[in-house]
Amino acid sequence: MDKSKIPEIGNQLYQLIEKLYPICRSITGNGNRKTLQIIKKIIPIDIKEVPTGTKVFDWTVPKEWNINDAYVKDSSGNKIIDFKNSNLHIVNYSKPIHTTLTLKELKDHLNTLPDYPDWIPYKTSYYQDQWGFCLSFNDLKKIKEDNYEVFVDSELSIGSLTYGEYYIKGELEDEVLISTHICHPSMCNDNLSAISIATYLAEYIQNIKNKFSYRIIFIPATIGAITWLALNEKNLYKIKYGLVLALLGDEGKFNYKRSRLGNSSIDKLIQFVLSTKNFDHAIQNFTPYGYDERQFCSPGINLPMGTIMRTPNKKFPEYHTSADNLNFVKSSKLAESLELLTNIIDTIEFNQKYINLFPKCEPQLGRRGIYNSVAGNINDLEYAILWLLNYSDGNHDLIDIAEKSGLDLKLLNSAGKILLEKKLITISN
Amino acid sequence: MDKSKIPEIGNQLYQLIEKLYPICRSITGNGNRKTLQIIKKIIPIDIKEVPTGTKVFDWTVPKEWNINDAYVKDSSGNKIIDFKNSNLHIVNYSKPIHTTLTLKELKDHLNTLPDYPDWIPYKTSYYQDQWGFCLSFNDLKKIKEDNYEVFVDSELSIGSLTYGEYYIKGELEDEVLISTHICHPSMCNDNLSAISIATYLAEYIQNIKNKFSYRIIFIPATIGAITWLALNEKNLYKIKYGLVLALLGDEGKFNYKRSRLGNSSIDKLIQFVLSTKNFDHAIQNFTPYGYDERQFCSPGINLPMGTIMRTPNKKFPEYHTSADNLNFVKSSKLAESLELLTNIIDTIEFNQKYINLFPKCEPQLGRRGIYNSVAGNINDLEYAILWLLNYSDGNHDLIDIAEKSGLDLKLLNSAGKILLEKKLITISN
Amino acid sequence: MDKSKIPEIGNQLYQLIEKLYPICRSITGNGNRKTLQIIKKIIPIDIKEVPTGTKVFDWTVPKEWNINDAYVKDSSGNKIIDFKNSNLHIVNYSKPIHTTLTLKELKDHLNTLPDYPDWIPYKTSYYQDQWGFCLSFNDLKKIKEDNYEVFVDSELSIGSLTYGEYYIKGELEDEVLISTHICHPSMCNDNLSAISIATYLAEYIQNIKNKFSYRIIFIPATIGAITWLALNEKNLYKIKYGLVLALLGDEGKFNYKRSRLGNSSIDKLIQFVLSTKNFDHAIQNFTPYGYDERQFCSPGINLPMGTIMRTPNKKFPEYHTSADNLNFVKSSKLAESLELLTNIIDTIEFNQKYINLFPKCEPQLGRRGIYNSVAGNINDLEYAILWLLNYSDGNHDLIDIAEKSGLDLKLLNSAGKILLEKKLITISN
Repeated sequence: MDKSKIPEIGNQLYQLIEKLYPICRSITGNGNRKTLQIIKKIIPIDIKEVPTGTKVFDWTVPKEWNINDAYVKDSSGNKIIDFKNSNLHIVNYSKPIHTTLTLKELKDHLNTLPDYPDWIPYKTSYYQDQWGFCLSFNDLKKIKEDNYEVFVDSELSIGSLTYGEYYIKGELEDEVLISTHICHPSMCNDNLSAISIATYLAEYIQNIKNKFSYRIIFIPATIGAITWLALNEKNLYKIKYGLVLALLGDEGKFNYKRSRLGNSSIDKLIQFVLSTKNFDHAIQNFTPYGYDERQFCSPGINLPMGTIMRTPNKKFPEYHTSADNLNFVKSSKLAESLELLTNIIDTIEFNQKYINLFPKCEPQLGRRGIYNSVAGNINDLEYAILWLLNYSDGNHDLIDIAEKSGLDLKLLNSAGKILLEKKLITISN
Repeated sequence: MDKSKIPEIGNQLYQLIEKLYPICRSITGNGNRKTLQIIKKIIPIDIKEVPTGTKVFDWTVPKEWNINDAYVKDSSGNKIIDFKNSNLHIVNYSKPIHTTLTLKELKDHLNTLPDYPDWIPYKTSYYQDQWGFCLSFNDLKKIKEDNYEVFVDSELSIGSLTYGEYYIKGELEDEVLISTHICHPSMCNDNLSAISIATYLAEYIQNIKNKFSYRIIFIPATIGAITWLALNEKNLYKIKYGLVLALLGDEGKFNYKRSRLGNSSIDKLIQFVLSTKNFDHAIQNFTPYGYDERQFCSPGINLPMGTIMRTPNKKFPEYHTSADNLNFVKSSKLAESLELLTNIIDTIEFNQKYINLFPKCEPQLGRRGIYNSVAGNINDLEYAILWLLNYSDGNHDLIDIAEKSGLDLKLLNSAGKILLEKKLITISN
Repeated sequence: MDKSKIPEIGNQLYQLIEKLYPICRSITGNGNRKTLQIIKKIIPIDIKEVPTGTKVFDWTVPKEWNINDAYVKDSSGNKIIDFKNSNLHIVNYSKPIHTTLTLKELKDHLNTLPDYPDWIPYKTSYYQDQWGFCLSFNDLKKIKEDNYEVFVDSELSIGSLTYGEYYIKGELEDEVLISTHICHPSMCNDNLSAISIATYLAEYIQNIKNKFSYRIIFIPATIGAITWLALNEKNLYKIKYGLVLALLGDEGKFNYKRSRLGNSSIDKLIQFVLSTKNFDHAIQNFTPYGYDERQFCSPGINLPMGTIMRTPNKKFPEYHTSADNLNFVKSSKLAESLELLTNIIDTIEFNQKYINLFPKCEPQLGRRGIYNSVAGNINDLEYAILWLLNYSDGNHDLIDIAEKSGLDLKLLNSAGKILLEKKLITISN
């Protein structure tokens, strides 16, 4: 990536976050539709609707949730909590209610963060017949004994689960799956950062001559991933590399979480990119907790799918609070995250496996004009040619050869093009 | 184990050693029968007799050896060596003799330990047409030129090899084999310590609701193990875990010697128990020398059978001498050894392998009331449930999952019970 | 090797180098024939001729090159470059030419080494329609503006490629292949050192009672190896161990370059010899560049064939220059190289795999008179016998057992002979 373009790209990524920040998203509902419509102005995603009641593995697509308003009013008519001020004030998926409660009764429905008294926590009540509000601990302390009018103008009704999908056809049927969750309201790092990155990464991919086919999905967490997997089960075999994107705008270093397979194609590739491109990073083993890798890497699905984050979930205090706001994410960090991901895409595209068509001894390169070594002198390209020929045995891809030889992937890629043209190797699919 | 009970348990273990100490055992004979009868008062072992001459692999059950008396008398009629004072004075399996010898002739039949001049060595002459005496080096120095009456009142006759076996049936046919040798006369660490531990460990097992079946065998070393293996060859496939017990009463740390397989079920399990339960210990690889692991881990038998000791054979000077006496073993150490072994049994019983019945994505735990996580909060049990579901793929047992997750085995066991009850997993046999 | 014999053996090795040094070798031609005739006076090699035009995999045996004379003469008739002074003055495989050139034109055909101004470089123009001269940079600087007569009295004609092969039949059809290149003119380390070592190593082998069959080949690099492999392809399966010899006379430590297989029979064996015999050494992984391991370890050939060198090619400045002369190689180092190689041969011969014929429990050794251990005492040979019996399971050879047990290979070999004689084990082929 051209270093001079980083400020511009960072701004673009940040501006999309700004646009999406006010919308109240959830696992279903109009907030998600609005979000996907904004993305669709940048990349031509399909917006899909899966009806309430659809069976997806052990789950069922739930009723659609929409909310117009919600507040708590004291007896003087003052709104002491007002959804209009923050989407986080309402426990996400709260059922409709209109009633009057004592302070004691009300408190059973209030959530705060005593350790961070200025912040509003983010809570959900999916699949529970519940309602609740969230507020700062400092605001809670101000609430006095009184009778309170509670109003949640939400709706739980037959509708659908909405997600976005963008398929970019390549030369091959083999697919790269990129997934990010869209169910979080008004939090920037989790997960508007990754939504923005995924959008502009898709834009990047559609402008290269891609060999692999790419599928970028914007889905609600858990139920969205389960729904997508259930509907697409018979095509999962096409997925050669997969990536879950999350938490890509904070100032922490990169964290790559391996696929459940532990040493899959994507694990090898991302570790290679992170180390050869000198991104500050850490690597973790798979755990069955976190984001949608929980589903993509469940034992009966078990895709070669890793997770790219900066600071992992629960490892920063702003996580799932109102402090995960527009100040928390940095445009320069967003730009660097996109840079890493374009490097990953480039490497996926480069990382061919070839078959040497002349595996018995070396083919005569000199007669084909691609080897001018005279008694012991050899240039880097000739050396790369020898490595590529020797290890193009069906067991080694370009990354393997780069790691064995210490040679640069681009140089090996150039060697590959020459050998292909000279019909000394063929592409292994 | 309840810490307050250790003195009591230690005393019990020690008292059994005291009771068995005076008996002259060998690879066959009445000493072994008497020993097994004493054990039978505590646990209901079967006492088996295998006739002299029985072919067992490359070996033959030898003649039975019994001894009434043995001494060396000087010309004045003083017994200068007297079997009645120590079972170790006679070379074990000495043939009968009654003769008169010069000192020079006698010396060819005497064994001492010049480095430890007060101790009597332990020697055997199995399968050799020999006789001999053992005495302290200091006593040897006192012996003067004289004619000596040598009398060994032993008998080598058609009889049988005697061993004890206690089978504790469990829910499964799968077996745990525990073996200890009973052929050593009047030495406490080698091997009355392990005989006592095996006896009370069997008592412990019969009082639990055991899933595995257990077989505890009390056998003479080498020929006893070979005999048992030859007679039971067709049932060896049932053995899922095996343990040789020896040298469990001294003050050294634990030494676990791996099975020949090197990374078998028992190896993984014992290393897990030793490290997670913080027993001071060392691990060694298999060597084809030591105790009956030589037979259990011979290449054509090759059981998943390790050896638990404290200080290994030949690594303490008292080994195979009269100094391996009632002062050398400590009741507190015996109690700790039993504690380790009960931990091993508990872990064997815990260490289930399950199969996730809903392997495609996570099953919906919330609807089954076993997952109350709200937007990013999760308790330890829920976390254990996720780990167990994800790795219950037929390839990982509970120890594997404990090692991968860092979670406690008991917590995973609790998670397993809940998931079994909810019919989300099944037991893998 | 008897230390007192090293000076004598070193001299013998050095004298053969002296004899071969003046000859102008190439990939074909009379120089090679003369070289092989000299070797044939020491060991009875077959000298083989493969006609020009023979197809060998992707290559064709080239025209034969011979040269009588070559010089550059100034206008006063002084020879300023004269092939008669050094074989390196002519670019190897230069086509015939007789012409007159200006200094500027001449310079296009001159090669020097500015960094080492006294040395003549070694250059080749195989498979190119070229001619050229090599000279020291200091000599180049002396050449003035003039018209120069250039004369290369060489011949490129239908003939053959010549190589030498010595097959030493052993008890087994299994073969050990030893290869060294003979195409370099007048350089001592590269590769007269290895030619001399290979010759005397063959003499050593023919004087032992060899179990393996040995094939020692003296071939021109690249085309010679390709030719040999193409002609012998159907017998390659017999090769159990292979070694490329090169660069064995300098003062550097040994460098072993692994086969492409990475952990093949030869790799394990040579690492074992180098470390247990305390030769100063380094180990490198395979790279598809260097000597004829490029062909022997191409992916479609992939023999268990490593390369033994001292300082590797390109890692010493004298490499491929006139400074790789009779002063550069040392007789003591040549002798040590031969010592290493005889150790390797001895270990290959020793390194038997046995099968225990009594794998169920230990066989009764005492009754066969080969185990006198009495209650815990055991000597080294008895211990070796137990190790050998336990691991003679078809998966472990003597080197594996030596590594597992820490026992000396000779001791294990003695144990093997005893157990063979007692019919307790058999040889595994």
